[in-house]
Amino acid sequence: MQNIRVNGQRLWDSLMEMAQIGATEKGGVCRLALTDLDKQARDLFVRWCEDAGCTVGVDKMGNIFARRPGKDESRPPVMTGSHIDSQPTGGKFDGIYGVLAGLEVIRTLNDLDYETNAPIEVSAWTNEEGSRFAPAMVASGVFGGEFELDYALACKDRDGKTIAEELERIGYAGDMECGGRDVGAFFETHIEQGPILEADGKTIGVVQGVQGIRWYEVEVTGMESHAGTTPMDRRKDALVAASMMVVEANRLGETTSDARTTIGMMEVSPNSRNVIPGHVFLTLDLRHPDADTLATMGTSFKSVCEGIASDRGCDLKFEEIWYSAPVKFDATCIGAVQSSADSLALDNRPITSGAGHDAVYVSRVAPAAMIFIPCKDGISHNEIEDATQEHLTAGCDVLLNAMVARADALG
Amino acid sequence: MQNIRVNGQRLWDSLMEMAQIGATEKGGVCRLALTDLDKQARDLFVRWCEDAGCTVGVDKMGNIFARRPGKDESRPPVMTGSHIDSQPTGGKFDGIYGVLAGLEVIRTLNDLDYETNAPIEVSAWTNEEGSRFAPAMVASGVFGGEFELDYALACKDRDGKTIAEELERIGYAGDMECGGRDVGAFFETHIEQGPILEADGKTIGVVQGVQGIRWYEVEVTGMESHAGTTPMDRRKDALVAASMMVVEANRLGETTSDARTTIGMMEVSPNSRNVIPGHVFLTLDLRHPDADTLATMGTSFKSVCEGIASDRGCDLKFEEIWYSAPVKFDATCIGAVQSSADSLALDNRPITSGAGHDAVYVSRVAPAAMIFIPCKDGISHNEIEDATQEHLTAGCDVLLNAMVARADALG
Repeated sequence: MQNIRVNGQRLWDSLMEMAQIGATEKGGVCRLALTDLDKQARDLFVRWCEDAGCTVGVDKMGNIFARRPGKDESRPPVMTGSHIDSQPTGGKFDGIYGVLAGLEVIRTLNDLDYETNAPIEVSAWTNEEGSRFAPAMVASGVFGGEFELDYALACKDRDGKTIAEELERIGYAGDMECGGRDVGAFFETHIEQGPILEADGKTIGVVQGVQGIRWYEVEVTGMESHAGTTPMDRRKDALVAASMMVVEANRLGETTSDARTTIGMMEVSPNSRNVIPGHVFLTLDLRHPDADTLATMGTSFKSVCEGIASDRGCDLKFEEIWYSAPVKFDATCIGAVQSSADSLALDNRPITSGAGHDAVYVSRVAPAAMIFIPCKDGISHNEIEDATQEHLTAGCDVLLNAMVARADALG
Repeated sequence: MQNIRVNGQRLWDSLMEMAQIGATEKGGVCRLALTDLDKQARDLFVRWCEDAGCTVGVDKMGNIFARRPGKDESRPPVMTGSHIDSQPTGGKFDGIYGVLAGLEVIRTLNDLDYETNAPIEVSAWTNEEGSRFAPAMVASGVFGGEFELDYALACKDRDGKTIAEELERIGYAGDMECGGRDVGAFFETHIEQGPILEADGKTIGVVQGVQGIRWYEVEVTGMESHAGTTPMDRRKDALVAASMMVVEANRLGETTSDARTTIGMMEVSPNSRNVIPGHVFLTLDLRHPDADTLATMGTSFKSVCEGIASDRGCDLKFEEIWYSAPVKFDATCIGAVQSSADSLALDNRPITSGAGHDAVYVSRVAPAAMIFIPCKDGISHNEIEDATQEHLTAGCDVLLNAMVARADALG
């Protein structure tokens, strides 16, 4: 098959028009899930899809599916998509790029009058960010079987409003079942939200999977005492012990290939200038693409902490509170992305996603893969989030060719 | 001179009776400066002093002076004292022991019908703790020339009440000048508030001086970023840098003889599990009995922090906010304490005070020294603060003999 290409200017213009909805003064977007602004953005997306000849359906979680028929309508669709909602101080590309890239695929196929064997669908998943309703990715999670529908519909925002109520209010409580149908392949295009592609001078990240995550809560209990009267050798300084743990966690991350280790929270008690800290609470976020390595990191770090606590005369509580297994994407879908990027002569590299995406849950019920493009300075979840038109177009070109390849192969 | 001895049971009984005023459920004392409870305790002390034949005067800072005449009333008095106020969750001995030990000295001299050459005075200094009114030791500070009288009288509590108003209200706004008169010698008896004497099995600490203190505020600024998407080698983790500083500060303390280094406060921002910390604020408390060593500790630790910040790609702000110079007590007064302890055959050792005391400021205008006795587990500023009758008596015996020695020498 010869390479085909999207209309990069049209994609850019659509992104910029969409970015008006919820635009912030600093150039970002605030479009929280199921607010009036989310409704406006959904309505615009639906209108664009219908203008492009698609049939639009909405499921019980408010997920939107815009369908372009294939030659063989009995075939499961080849799907792409991401999310329309944003962080409170979000950017113009996180999520919405993956949705509008799908629309641009359909528009391009229309321009080319190209009929794929399998149908093509573009999805917009409700409440990916988790900023308004926890948990994040809740609607793709129902689609992928991670959450029960009733649980998800009952999730509340801080004002006590449920997802069900808010879907009803904005007119996106659909009647399609959420999930339970065949999807031939799923692709999600997204900005990297990290610095790797930019630093490496690559245009396309061929996403192999998503890191596993283990979250821990650690408490170190020493003995509060007077900073002036307590000799160094008689102290049980919980902060000294905790700081040694931070240094060791960082060392573990730096010495384990592909690992990420972060202590993001630390709370010191009594937190007074002239009192030796008696208690420290800290959180630990461990990530690795390989499940066994991740588990080993957790157990070996625990024993490092036990050694430190014991050396410093402190007590230790070390508790795992969450585990998200690593995801390995489907080899055929990854291959389609790889071939597409190679044949378009786009500089690319394999990459592991550091963050969660809707594709994680969809991958439980469909062969899936993701396409990353660089974002400026690796910054996302920030109003200054930025990406170039060239990269946005390149990612969409890869998506187009990968989808067509799978849709025709599946046809 | 032969050794004379106090009545340890009477001292204990007075301490226990006084501890009823402001007694807490957990066995401690809450007797904040210039409250009704402080007034009750002052009234009791004054009554006891008058019953012991003393003349009682009160100065403009509310400091109380109970005087037992000497053979030669033209001689400057030999004085002892400490404070009646307590921490909000204070113990039964901090401060009040030094006051009532002075009273017991007078009672014992009465019992013995012993007339010293120089007069004897027992002082109770207002607001030593600084819990209700900052700064601490404000009234001995005026006496010693550290603070202006007007500044001190205008200090406010959290409700906006001044020391002047509260002195007036409880009837302790005296008319004696605060300071400006000769004191022949000043002794302060106090619980150690640290673990050294207990650990070393000593009954008496012959206090040589008080550590110098330097306080610093340190800010480390890195770059907030996503815990999942930011590779280890591209991080500017302010908490990792700050933790290395804590470890190094502790190492500095452990490797410098007689030093104390404490990082008591640490505040992490944004303090979120999955965000690499972008900013950390921390405080540093450095102490050493030698001024030059203390200064060197500060400058060398600053350069250690600069190196760490630079290695970790972080910016550093390192500011000294307070300096309290080391105090070396008067050799003659220290000698009197040492001789007294030795001739009473009490196990003793030289010790440096880790905390501030009224004697620090009084030592600016009078030859001064302190006597420490052990406290249980080194705990003070806590309702479980404890000391034995044996040690309380021993400290008072040392005080008695040291005061008599100085009063007779000075007469």
